[in-house]
Amino acid sequence: MSDAKQVIERLGKKATAAARKMRMIETHNKDDALRAAAVLFRAEMDDILVANALDMKAADENKLEASLKDRLALNAERVEAMAQGLEEIATLPDPVGAILDLVYRPSGIQVGHMRVPLGVIGIIYESRPNVTADAAALCLKSGNAAILRGGSEAIHSNRAIAKILRQALLQAGVPEDAVQLIDQTDRALVGALLAAEAYVDVIIPRGGKSLVARVSADAKVPVIKHLDGICHVYIDAAADADMATNIALNAKTHRYGVCNAMETLLIHQDAAALLPRIVGDLLDEGVEVRGCKKTQAACESLNVRTASDEDWATEYLAAVLSIRIVASLDGAMDHIAQYSSGHTEAIVTNNYDAGQRFLREVDSSSVMWNASTRFADGFEYGLGAEIGISTDRLHVRGPVGLEGLTTQKWIVMGHGEVRS
Amino acid sequence: MSDAKQVIERLGKKATAAARKMRMIETHNKDDALRAAAVLFRAEMDDILVANALDMKAADENKLEASLKDRLALNAERVEAMAQGLEEIATLPDPVGAILDLVYRPSGIQVGHMRVPLGVIGIIYESRPNVTADAAALCLKSGNAAILRGGSEAIHSNRAIAKILRQALLQAGVPEDAVQLIDQTDRALVGALLAAEAYVDVIIPRGGKSLVARVSADAKVPVIKHLDGICHVYIDAAADADMATNIALNAKTHRYGVCNAMETLLIHQDAAALLPRIVGDLLDEGVEVRGCKKTQAACESLNVRTASDEDWATEYLAAVLSIRIVASLDGAMDHIAQYSSGHTEAIVTNNYDAGQRFLREVDSSSVMWNASTRFADGFEYGLGAEIGISTDRLHVRGPVGLEGLTTQKWIVMGHGEVRS
Repeated sequence: MSDAKQVIERLGKKATAAARKMRMIETHNKDDALRAAAVLFRAEMDDILVANALDMKAADENKLEASLKDRLALNAERVEAMAQGLEEIATLPDPVGAILDLVYRPSGIQVGHMRVPLGVIGIIYESRPNVTADAAALCLKSGNAAILRGGSEAIHSNRAIAKILRQALLQAGVPEDAVQLIDQTDRALVGALLAAEAYVDVIIPRGGKSLVARVSADAKVPVIKHLDGICHVYIDAAADADMATNIALNAKTHRYGVCNAMETLLIHQDAAALLPRIVGDLLDEGVEVRGCKKTQAACESLNVRTASDEDWATEYLAAVLSIRIVASLDGAMDHIAQYSSGHTEAIVTNNYDAGQRFLREVDSSSVMWNASTRFADGFEYGLGAEIGISTDRLHVRGPVGLEGLTTQKWIVMGHGEVRS
Repeated sequence: MSDAKQVIERLGKKATAAARKMRMIETHNKDDALRAAAVLFRAEMDDILVANALDMKAADENKLEASLKDRLALNAERVEAMAQGLEEIATLPDPVGAILDLVYRPSGIQVGHMRVPLGVIGIIYESRPNVTADAAALCLKSGNAAILRGGSEAIHSNRAIAKILRQALLQAGVPEDAVQLIDQTDRALVGALLAAEAYVDVIIPRGGKSLVARVSADAKVPVIKHLDGICHVYIDAAADADMATNIALNAKTHRYGVCNAMETLLIHQDAAALLPRIVGDLLDEGVEVRGCKKTQAACESLNVRTASDEDWATEYLAAVLSIRIVASLDGAMDHIAQYSSGHTEAIVTNNYDAGQRFLREVDSSSVMWNASTRFADGFEYGLGAEIGISTDRLHVRGPVGLEGLTTQKWIVMGHGEVRS
């Protein structure tokens, strides 16, 4: 057996044993652990910052990009934010053990579902050390054991954070091995983790597109993944002009680098008169606009570049927007079916039939009617926390909160019933 | 590209196009198609039986086992049962489009879930031709497009059944390609189907353990699978004697070849006095009993063979039972954690704490308190139909009915809200 496989097997066995105990840990112990970790983050902030300084020094030596260095850097404020994040998760309702829809059947038995933890969750992430605390806290609150694999550039920070988390678990009477960090940077360990079907129930990659694609391609373990967010807003013929303008502006310009930002605006040809106003506002905000020929014609005096087919398939994550005029609602939905990544799409319309059809027929993880795509978010949806947004179809779709880290089992309560 | 890959790509493209249309097909059209198929099965019964006779002739020539030939054989009664099965599925509520938990958020938006079809479902099964009708009907009612791959020994029967199903779809205004049969017997087609991530959303194998294991090992597409059913009944110290006896007898002897039959009986040492009665009744029913040493001692005068470690890990699917005396509830749950296949376990007890702990801590798809394991079944649970029982943890667990063939998307209904 390779060394990597042995390391993962050792971690996996400990995680499996911890996961079994975690199923019965009471809510107050989990919450105590989260609060104890917050206290320790504040008390031992210096240790974390010293460890982070080692990572930052190595980052300088390795000439890491400025954006990566920014993600890697910790300071008092960021550590305090991590501590507060843990305290917030402690206030959320515990999803584990909730019994849903318990009903009597003609046979006399009662049948329902109970929410239970997934088991062992592997988290693979990149340079942000705060993910170590966030992800561990979400796994803990949902009753799972976590195996964490952060980026090698953050190894010292991650070790310091994981050490504090485990100390807090111990204080609160929760199995320490519910949080384990893979504390070697050997790349073979990722491969071994992705193949560890016997020990890991699900893998969640958190990071850029290339990380997620690599994890998905290689994993034998099921993956809850988030790929692109090529989100659309469709302005229908029956849209309110002010509402359409506000939503289009907000969906594009509220933040550029986020997965729920609009990347393509579709507009019904009968609403094309709205375009000069919307495009003017976008240009004023510094957005580069690329349009189909009809869009260019409708915005003659404005600086609209030519959109290519490639634009429709691009997640810009930047101050760029493509615009296409369509002949009908069906034309808009055809475009979406062809180019959407299945993340989030919105229609703006006051027409009941158009809105109903769009909600029903568009096959994305979030489908919206008269609201900005920027609402596709665990906090906005009321999940209280979010480990990511799933663009998969099975198990969990869209923003993933604590419930997304659980599964269900059937429970039956009887009085001695037998099958006849 | 290989021929097999081309064939699957052609089917997959048609299925994907049909699946998109299926999302908007109204309930009455789907039900009309199911009822039309039932009418056609009865009207064209001769065609089905002639096709089946070809398969039976080939089965004779190929010296197929008697049990396989029994599964393969159709007659008027079995075709009528298929027709009635379709009519029953037509009476079930349509899961698609149901909106759950739509609530207002502080931002003003309404957020909830809508149930939607999974998309394209590949079903891989063995000799029973009735699966062609059952599986297609469940996929159809849940708004999915099905690609069916039956056993080569049933190819003529499956062709005749699929032809009728497609004719019924056409009559009812439902896309014909919502049901497609892979009508060549080339084995490479299975491999190509399992790899067709671009066209198939999920694969459901229906058949014996070796088929399911092969499909799971090879599939790139997610699989909803059912492996072993090593089910346990645990008789607690505080069990009612009659109830314990009834449940143990029913769980073992009601039917032997089924996945929800008990394979191991665990009993608390303080309840061991019940064993002679239970074992006596089991022996009277012709069950072979294999026990631990303590069981043998407790049933001195009875014919109890010696159970080996292998027995604890065996799904007999036959008139054989292993029995183990345990020192405590924890001992029972330790045994279950080690040997159970995660299908169904039951406790018999009148002790509140013991029952509560068992329900909470045992990690199987069905966990029961004072009821026979034989209730783990889609019909008994009220699903109205069942495409199988999932022993997976993600997406769907336990009996899989129409809802298990759907996924959810988030829907947002607003009034022009934007993020601030």
